[in-house]
Amino acid sequence: MYQLLNGLSVIEASSFVASPTAGLYCAQFGAEVIRVDQVGGGPDYRRWPVTAENNSLYWENLNRAKKSVALNLGVPEGRELLKELVRATGQFITNFPAEGFLSHAKLSEGRSDLVTVRVMGWADGAPALDYTVNNAVGYPMLTGPGPEPVNHVLPAWDLLSGAYAAFALLAAIQRRAVTGEGSEVRIPLSDVAIGTVANLGGIAEVLYSGENRPRLGNAVYGLFGRDFVTADGQRTMIVVVTHRQWANLIAALDLGDRIAAIEAARGVSFAADDGLRYTHRDALYPLFESAIGARPHADLAAALDGAGIVHSAYRTMQDAAQDSRLVGGNPMFSAFDANPSGFAYPAAGAFGTIPQQERGAPQPAPRNGQHSEEVLTSRLNLSSGEFARLIDTGIVGTDR
Amino acid sequence: MYQLLNGLSVIEASSFVASPTAGLYCAQFGAEVIRVDQVGGGPDYRRWPVTAENNSLYWENLNRAKKSVALNLGVPEGRELLKELVRATGQFITNFPAEGFLSHAKLSEGRSDLVTVRVMGWADGAPALDYTVNNAVGYPMLTGPGPEPVNHVLPAWDLLSGAYAAFALLAAIQRRAVTGEGSEVRIPLSDVAIGTVANLGGIAEVLYSGENRPRLGNAVYGLFGRDFVTADGQRTMIVVVTHRQWANLIAALDLGDRIAAIEAARGVSFAADDGLRYTHRDALYPLFESAIGARPHADLAAALDGAGIVHSAYRTMQDAAQDSRLVGGNPMFSAFDANPSGFAYPAAGAFGTIPQQERGAPQPAPRNGQHSEEVLTSRLNLSSGEFARLIDTGIVGTDR
Repeated sequence: MYQLLNGLSVIEASSFVASPTAGLYCAQFGAEVIRVDQVGGGPDYRRWPVTAENNSLYWENLNRAKKSVALNLGVPEGRELLKELVRATGQFITNFPAEGFLSHAKLSEGRSDLVTVRVMGWADGAPALDYTVNNAVGYPMLTGPGPEPVNHVLPAWDLLSGAYAAFALLAAIQRRAVTGEGSEVRIPLSDVAIGTVANLGGIAEVLYSGENRPRLGNAVYGLFGRDFVTADGQRTMIVVVTHRQWANLIAALDLGDRIAAIEAARGVSFAADDGLRYTHRDALYPLFESAIGARPHADLAAALDGAGIVHSAYRTMQDAAQDSRLVGGNPMFSAFDANPSGFAYPAAGAFGTIPQQERGAPQPAPRNGQHSEEVLTSRLNLSSGEFARLIDTGIVGTDR
Repeated sequence: MYQLLNGLSVIEASSFVASPTAGLYCAQFGAEVIRVDQVGGGPDYRRWPVTAENNSLYWENLNRAKKSVALNLGVPEGRELLKELVRATGQFITNFPAEGFLSHAKLSEGRSDLVTVRVMGWADGAPALDYTVNNAVGYPMLTGPGPEPVNHVLPAWDLLSGAYAAFALLAAIQRRAVTGEGSEVRIPLSDVAIGTVANLGGIAEVLYSGENRPRLGNAVYGLFGRDFVTADGQRTMIVVVTHRQWANLIAALDLGDRIAAIEAARGVSFAADDGLRYTHRDALYPLFESAIGARPHADLAAALDGAGIVHSAYRTMQDAAQDSRLVGGNPMFSAFDANPSGFAYPAAGAFGTIPQQERGAPQPAPRNGQHSEEVLTSRLNLSSGEFARLIDTGIVGTDR
């Protein structure tokens, strides 16, 4: 928890990855983020990975540092309470349908300066998920050795959409501070995906070339970068992005003469041209395969570190979780035993580090309805009798 | 271009993907983003894909709607001009080293309320790239059919870091508006990657189970989702995230009786449990393979659309670029012929859609140094004589 967004309160009605990460990033920067869910939990409340008691390790990490209000959204009175909470707060993150009971137009009645950020599937309202927009824009056909398409495992489009939604929320609030006007920013996964293809030059590339990019396995397009296997069988990624790194890599592997011979034979110089190192990869890769294949990994890694070359062995997630640089000794993580699951493990805070501030301790995810009473009675000025009636009728749930 | 961040000016000294996308997203929301590069272009200026004339289609899309100032950063006077521009502006996005001439401490001398957002490799300053942090946290070992690791092609960590950097910039500006204090937010790719593993429950999962997640090919962990091949050979992804979708999918494929038989034999009910649909995939997948394998894709797609099932055929990027829903008929794109490369193609605007605002036209990327005179003379109050001297001495470059 850092203190950048203190004083900002956001209602989040959402599920799965994209929209909840937008709320998470705000909460980890000090905003009050109130997640509103169906009594008993939304559609993501038991999503895997889960413990033996069916507590979701996924949910309890994507919703850290948030408050939870539980409402029966299947009945009009529950839906009305959510709408009132949004209006009383003024900032709203959601992935509910654009034209449903949480439409910006309906919510804006009585709160004209409302800021809504809405993550969607397709821009036209049709459903889509990370794994389907990924197919639609072409990445799986470029991934892996081929010929079959390979899906990413990381839900990259959800994550990018979530971070962009957090950005869009603050941008719309910034505009409101100047103009007094509210607005809705709709963020369709499909537009994030195809827009990113465009931003990286992919639309221009395929239209210019009239072809698809070749499938490269673990090699990187347009520069020198690939996986290689050391003498002791460790597969390692090496990527060269500066001309100095190229010179240092050749020196570290003692390949100067053999590279010069290729340059002479082909009439090129690799010294200052990423693209040539890529187009002549048929000649370059074998040299590096044999030079790297002759050295044990520890020896190679020391040489590459000394030369400022960017490299990394492939590791499992289990390896990563045990790694002190990534987790155990990383100030972003803290030992944490207050998780709703009861399982104790290192908890992550905000991705950013602010040297001028103390990094506060991570916070737990809430239990479903844990903050219903606090939030509803204070923000909507409900009396204790009125709150008791909502509990008795099942309109509101708590964790007790 | 939308008008959310009008009045905000940002200096960006950066290269490659992460840090430039942070500037791009701000520019597409109406901020003035001034990218400062080495005269002749930074290390990413010719990055592939490129045209026959070696103009980068990558650079001209990642830097749309920005201004360009070209300085000789190899000499003290050029570096000093960049520092003065940062101080005169007050907001700075960079991926230059944390302890170099663009350290926040040095830049803050004379501008104590400076906001710096810095994308880094490792948090300790060691170099890292998207493709190496990806290996370090374990995703390639979970991707594809195995046994070899498979890299993602999308630079997902760069992109997530870039969007998070844009969010962090606005959050730090928000805090400054309240407290008057500047700050630096450091965003290491390594922390974005391992923090995301944690946010998705991955750290908890491997520590709880003591194992790595099984490698699933194109199947989705913890729910019913996989690729299937239709009678006419079209590979298609189908993912079920709600109980209603599950019921509808079974009905659309007429699998009710056979699913019920599995439920009876195994003593489970799939109706309201994502996890069971995953743990019993050995029995479920063959049923769907044969039902889907018996239908042509057009027939299947119509049935799935009618039932609200989320699905997508695998397509190439060339297919995507030609698709009217994604590009040609998508309001996010506009035909555009003012690119520095001279090649005309649809240009993307902001990912977000704001129904209350007009979506302005996309803007071109600048030519190297195109705005050197405008920016340096106005923001640093340089006289025309002084500016001419800087041109003559090669400290400043322009596009003329």
